[in-house]
Amino acid sequence: MSAVAEQTIQEYVDKVGRKAKEAARALARSTTAARNEALLGAAGRIEARAAEIAAANADDLAAARQAGLEEAMVERMELTPARIEAMAAGLREIAALPDPVGAIRDMAYRPSGIQVGRMRVPLGVIGIIYESRPNVTADAAGLCLKSGNATILRGGSEAIRSNGIIAHCIREAVEAAGLPADAVQLVETTDRAAVGALIQMDRYVDVIVPRGGKSLIERITAEARVPVIKHLDGVCHVYVDDHADPDMAVAVAINAKTQRYGTCNTMETLLVAASVADRVLPETGERLRAAGVEVRCCPRALPLVEGAVAADESDWGAEYLGPVLAVRVVDGFDEAVAHIARYGSGHTDAIVTADHGRAMRFLREVDSSSVMVNASTRFADGHEYGLGAEIGISTDKLHARGPVGLEGLTTEKFIVLGNGHVRR
Amino acid sequence: MSAVAEQTIQEYVDKVGRKAKEAARALARSTTAARNEALLGAAGRIEARAAEIAAANADDLAAARQAGLEEAMVERMELTPARIEAMAAGLREIAALPDPVGAIRDMAYRPSGIQVGRMRVPLGVIGIIYESRPNVTADAAGLCLKSGNATILRGGSEAIRSNGIIAHCIREAVEAAGLPADAVQLVETTDRAAVGALIQMDRYVDVIVPRGGKSLIERITAEARVPVIKHLDGVCHVYVDDHADPDMAVAVAINAKTQRYGTCNTMETLLVAASVADRVLPETGERLRAAGVEVRCCPRALPLVEGAVAADESDWGAEYLGPVLAVRVVDGFDEAVAHIARYGSGHTDAIVTADHGRAMRFLREVDSSSVMVNASTRFADGHEYGLGAEIGISTDKLHARGPVGLEGLTTEKFIVLGNGHVRR
Repeated sequence: MSAVAEQTIQEYVDKVGRKAKEAARALARSTTAARNEALLGAAGRIEARAAEIAAANADDLAAARQAGLEEAMVERMELTPARIEAMAAGLREIAALPDPVGAIRDMAYRPSGIQVGRMRVPLGVIGIIYESRPNVTADAAGLCLKSGNATILRGGSEAIRSNGIIAHCIREAVEAAGLPADAVQLVETTDRAAVGALIQMDRYVDVIVPRGGKSLIERITAEARVPVIKHLDGVCHVYVDDHADPDMAVAVAINAKTQRYGTCNTMETLLVAASVADRVLPETGERLRAAGVEVRCCPRALPLVEGAVAADESDWGAEYLGPVLAVRVVDGFDEAVAHIARYGSGHTDAIVTADHGRAMRFLREVDSSSVMVNASTRFADGHEYGLGAEIGISTDKLHARGPVGLEGLTTEKFIVLGNGHVRR
Repeated sequence: MSAVAEQTIQEYVDKVGRKAKEAARALARSTTAARNEALLGAAGRIEARAAEIAAANADDLAAARQAGLEEAMVERMELTPARIEAMAAGLREIAALPDPVGAIRDMAYRPSGIQVGRMRVPLGVIGIIYESRPNVTADAAGLCLKSGNATILRGGSEAIRSNGIIAHCIREAVEAAGLPADAVQLVETTDRAAVGALIQMDRYVDVIVPRGGKSLIERITAEARVPVIKHLDGVCHVYVDDHADPDMAVAVAINAKTQRYGTCNTMETLLVAASVADRVLPETGERLRAAGVEVRCCPRALPLVEGAVAADESDWGAEYLGPVLAVRVVDGFDEAVAHIARYGSGHTDAIVTADHGRAMRFLREVDSSSVMVNASTRFADGHEYGLGAEIGISTDKLHARGPVGLEGLTTEKFIVLGNGHVRR
């Protein structure tokens, strides 16, 4: 950090960007074997230096407590032996995934005689801006490396010692595999201006992936010149259709709400068709109450849920991220779909129905990154979808939508093969 | 336009956006047949009202000339009978393309028992901002309609009468097909503030596609809050490798430069390996001179091209869009690839070589939207690639790269099928 003090932040970040761009060119032509070797080497180094990592983390924790950081935040930063082992295991898992880079699809001859197809290639340089959890350093760098991208990591300042040593392990392994160490760079200043410089640097950075709270993501999106793959709200709905099996409806709703409260794919509003409300809501309400969930009901749902309170307009579209659920009785399918269009966040929405036509219409008409039939919203996850590790869940429509795995960190270019072909 | 005067531009554009969003929901559930009927109906109406369209266009041309618009610009605006017929033919061609909407891929069971796959869906609302040529009104609206998107069209103010009547024909046909007329809206004010409002309206507009000069696109990109699919420079290279057949090299280079000068996929710099320069450059130079192309050479190329002038640093990376070519002799493959990385715009670059390894390395290592082997850069085009009509060529890396057809106007969502599955 002393080196940083001697130059302006802008110059420093510019240098980091330039080095990343250079490293990206080398990565784009690197072999699958070299990138996997780097990932496995990083895993081994993290294990071998677990004690050092734990010591650096202990310093971060002590400094954070001294600075008066909330205890819950401090705990999230902690690298227990199990968490250090999980980082190494995660890197090995990434190494085992198929290499997306260089895959060619749809090569076909055209009437002119040329052959045209598409090749999957890295995006180039990916900036990761994240808060507190130092394990993101290994996860994000690993996914970017596997997909042939250079990474610029900007972690939370409170975890800078932990992030520093993890990044060091990875850089060593990258170099040992014959790749440029600058394929993975950690921004070594806690100055906030570095974030501002990074997200404006469209000359060197191809995409920014922010990982953290909504306020961080909104600030970055508003100020960035570089494209952002972002995750905003998860206001997820389950709609219980007229043709739903009531037992299935209760099971899906309870799982979608209570399997975990703080995740973005947790149900926040339950919509129930009027014709089945009296067969679904009383039992759902009872089980929610037993689980300690506060239920906020529309006037039609209220008499059917014991112990519920009245919902107001602000409950529709609320992301509670906790043991609270909004419940609304709707006349039927169209009203449910309209409610989701108006109040949903386009993250994940599910229907429970035995009717094929309704299921197909729901899949088609609900404009969310994940749309489900007879399944809990909690399945919206890169691992559950078989993508391997995920770098995040995108609520954007362009480029990557829903859980973002290796494919979302790549792009496709057109390739053309001729034999001296010219255009007439 | 009188209606517009009574309200603020912001309110007006906001209303247009809200209506587009509503129409987009109806389009998302519309059938392939209804959208094709609308496209064919629009083609028929444009033909039936060709005389009216020509008259409105004549008024635009007269007003443009009176306002002192450059004659070349005025000519580009002209709707001759052939151009009106071409608009109708274009709409019929779009109707004949396969419907991208609703296509499902990669449905597979996961260990949890759920089935996961992806469904292609419209983006939603697409804003098209374009200059002068009124045929864009039909082309762009047609592509958006086919792909199930609502369109907000903002054409050049000088063509507002022509655009108005074309848009009217399309809206009538959309309504006759049972779809909401607001699926296609034309911004009916020439106030520039409308563009500013449109590109900021991320609540209603999902993507902006600007079609016009570089200054228009740069301004929109800098100011937009809505994602932009943009096309900037086409600084295209042909690299003639050591292992090139000299005759093929000359043929490809001449075609890439002279087949058409003003297009973005025209070669602007020719790179030639030193070992073949004396077998390639004299004849290329002679044929370029015969075609009236000014050749600007590096010091090593200069003695090999009769009548050439010396290039300076500003020639590398220049987009001439005219009968000028920069020529540079390089030591070999690596220097060529490095030159393209430094000065290219990531649009289209080609190698001429008989060596398989070099061809494969070029495809992999050159980071452009189209990378070619032994073919003229002029092939980089939606029609030549078999995409059908194109809405533009993207020089972005995210979402759509290279020629953008119907697929680039859509996105994919995850779909999940269960049978009451819950997450453990």
